[in-house]
Amino acid sequence: MRGAVLYGPRDIRFEERATPTIRESTDAVIRISATCVCGSDLWPYRGVNPITQPTPMGHEYCGVVEEVGRDVTRVRPGQFVIGSFFASDNTCPNCHAGYQSSCQHKQFVGDAQAPLLRVPLADGTLVPTREVPSEDMIPSLLTLSDVMGTGWFAADAAGVKPGATVVVVGDGAVGLLGVLSASQMGAERIIAMSRHESRQKLAREFGATEIVAERGEKAVARIRDLTNGIGADSVLECVGTPESMAQAVGSARAGGSVGYVGVPHSVTLDGEKLFYKHVHLHGGPAPVRRFLPELIDLVWNGKMNPGRVFDLVLPLDQVAEGYRAMDERRAVKALLRP
Amino acid sequence: MRGAVLYGPRDIRFEERATPTIRESTDAVIRISATCVCGSDLWPYRGVNPITQPTPMGHEYCGVVEEVGRDVTRVRPGQFVIGSFFASDNTCPNCHAGYQSSCQHKQFVGDAQAPLLRVPLADGTLVPTREVPSEDMIPSLLTLSDVMGTGWFAADAAGVKPGATVVVVGDGAVGLLGVLSASQMGAERIIAMSRHESRQKLAREFGATEIVAERGEKAVARIRDLTNGIGADSVLECVGTPESMAQAVGSARAGGSVGYVGVPHSVTLDGEKLFYKHVHLHGGPAPVRRFLPELIDLVWNGKMNPGRVFDLVLPLDQVAEGYRAMDERRAVKALLRP
Repeated sequence: MRGAVLYGPRDIRFEERATPTIRESTDAVIRISATCVCGSDLWPYRGVNPITQPTPMGHEYCGVVEEVGRDVTRVRPGQFVIGSFFASDNTCPNCHAGYQSSCQHKQFVGDAQAPLLRVPLADGTLVPTREVPSEDMIPSLLTLSDVMGTGWFAADAAGVKPGATVVVVGDGAVGLLGVLSASQMGAERIIAMSRHESRQKLAREFGATEIVAERGEKAVARIRDLTNGIGADSVLECVGTPESMAQAVGSARAGGSVGYVGVPHSVTLDGEKLFYKHVHLHGGPAPVRRFLPELIDLVWNGKMNPGRVFDLVLPLDQVAEGYRAMDERRAVKALLRP
Repeated sequence: MRGAVLYGPRDIRFEERATPTIRESTDAVIRISATCVCGSDLWPYRGVNPITQPTPMGHEYCGVVEEVGRDVTRVRPGQFVIGSFFASDNTCPNCHAGYQSSCQHKQFVGDAQAPLLRVPLADGTLVPTREVPSEDMIPSLLTLSDVMGTGWFAADAAGVKPGATVVVVGDGAVGLLGVLSASQMGAERIIAMSRHESRQKLAREFGATEIVAERGEKAVARIRDLTNGIGADSVLECVGTPESMAQAVGSARAGGSVGYVGVPHSVTLDGEKLFYKHVHLHGGPAPVRRFLPELIDLVWNGKMNPGRVFDLVLPLDQVAEGYRAMDERRAVKALLRP
C-alpha cells in the first residue's frame, strides 16, 4: 500500500509502505475511511521537532475493521470504529482514572495517513459505532479521534460549567472545537481569541459569543474589560507557546481554571505568579478514549457537527498539499480520503 | 501597648507601638486571646524577604471584640472571633467564588503579635464562635486563622477524597495540619514526608499512615514503590521551594492533583513536564474565610484538635524566643499569650 512519509522539513511523500498485518494477538487492522492532518503534525513538518529518519505520519483515524488478533473480543471485522492516537489497554489504574493517554501500556498510533492501519490493544482502544455510518457523518466522527477529543478535554480540564464565561486561546482546529465543546457544555459566554476572519466566522458558528482580536497583555486587558475586571471562569489554552500560556493564565479569574492541550514548546511557568493568580491548571495529551462513547452519541444524534472544521478535502495521495495548505494557513484542517 | 516589630535579620523586638483604634467605619478592634509565629514570618526574619523599615509582625489571631465601627453589623463587642490574615469584604465576585484571599478589597492583617488588633472589613473577615470558648480550646481555634486553614486548603486544592492515597510534602506546621486535614476528609493512606522524629510522631498522631524520610528523586521513587508504580491521588505541597515542588509533582499519579500552599520561592515549572504528567495544579494564599465556619464547628464539636501543633507556649513579651526556637527548628510552632 502507499502512505504518507515525512523525510525532512516540508518534504512529505506519498509512497510505498509495508502493508499492516496483525502482529500481536491484541491487534486489529482497520481500513481507513478518513484520516487527516493534525496541527501537531506541523511541528515535525516544519522542522521544529526534528526527525532522524523517514517517518510514517498520521494519528487521526476511523474506519472499518478488517481483521483482529485472536485475543480481541470487543470489536469484530465489519464494524466501524474510532480510536485515539494513543492505544491504551483501558484496564490499568491510569485508564480507570480516565487518563488513557497515560495508560501504563500506551502505544502511539502514528501511521494513520494510509489506507490500512494496525491498531494495538484493539479492545481497549477502539470504540465501534452502532452501525456503519453514512458518508456525511464520517468527517465529524473522524474529529473525535483527536482534534475534537482534544478540544473537549481542554474544556473538561478547564472545568466548563453551564452558565460559565469561557475564553479560548487559539483559533486552530483544536481551539475552534474547544469553542464547540464549551458550547455543548452549556457555557453562557464564549470569547474566542482570533484575528482571522474565516476562523472568527467558524468560531461564531460553533458557539462563540464574542471575538477578541488583541494579543498578549492587550488581550488580557480586553478580557478584564469584558468581565468587569474579574476574568473568565474557564480558559482553554490550545496553542502551546509561552505567549499563549501567559495569555491564558492572565485571562482567568481568581479560582478559575486553565485547561491546556497545546503541546508546550519552551513554556515555563512562574510558581509565584501562578500562586497569587489562584488559578487551577490542568492539561496534557487528551485522554480521548474517556470521551469517545459520549462524543460518538452527540454526533450520531445530530447534536453537533464538529466535521465542519475541515475546510479542505483531498484524496489521500495529495497528502502533501494538505500539509502545505495548513502550513501556509490556507486551510484550518485537511481531511484525506484513501 | 507593646507589640512585636522586626528591625532586620533575626532582630525582632517587643516594643511600644501605637494602640489600634477604629479608623474606618467597617473596622473592628479586638483584644487578642492568642497569636503565634508563622513559618512565613521566618522568610523576613531570616532576611530572605528583606524589609525596608521596622515592621510590625503577626497575622494569626483570635480574640474578643472590643469595639466596632458604625457600619459593622455582623460582629459586636464581647464576641469571640477568628479572622484570616487577609481581610476581605466577603461580597465581591472573588469572595463569592470562595477566593476571599483574592478579594477585590483585600487588606493584609500584619500586626497581630500584640495585645490589640485593628481588623478592617470586620463583617466580611471575622467569624464569631457561638460563645466565648474555654481556655483549652483557644490554641485549636487560633490555628484556624492561618496554619490549619492553609493545611485544609492544601488538601482541598489537592482534591482529597474519601479513600484517597495522599502524600504530604513538608513537615512544618502547615504540612502536619495538612495531614490532619486529609485525615478529616477521609483519606485512606496518608504518606508524610519527614525526617524529624518528633514531627513524624505528630504526623502519625494527626493521621499519617506511613512516613517517607527520603528526599528528592529518592522520595519520588519511594512513593512509586508504595503505590504500585502509580503515584498518589492527591499531593499537598507545604514548603514552596523548587525541590519540594518537584517532589510533589513527581509523586502524583496521572490525573492526580497537587495542592500547593508553600509560598513559592524561585519555583518555575516546566510546561512540557507538567503536560505529560497529567497533573492538576492548584494553590495560592489560602482563602481561610471560606473554611472558617466548617473548621470552627469541627473544633467546637471535638472532632479535631489542631492546637496540638503548638509545642511551645510563651508570654507575648518573649516573642523573640518564639522566632528563635522556630528558626532553629527547636519548635514546630510557637503560641504567644498577651
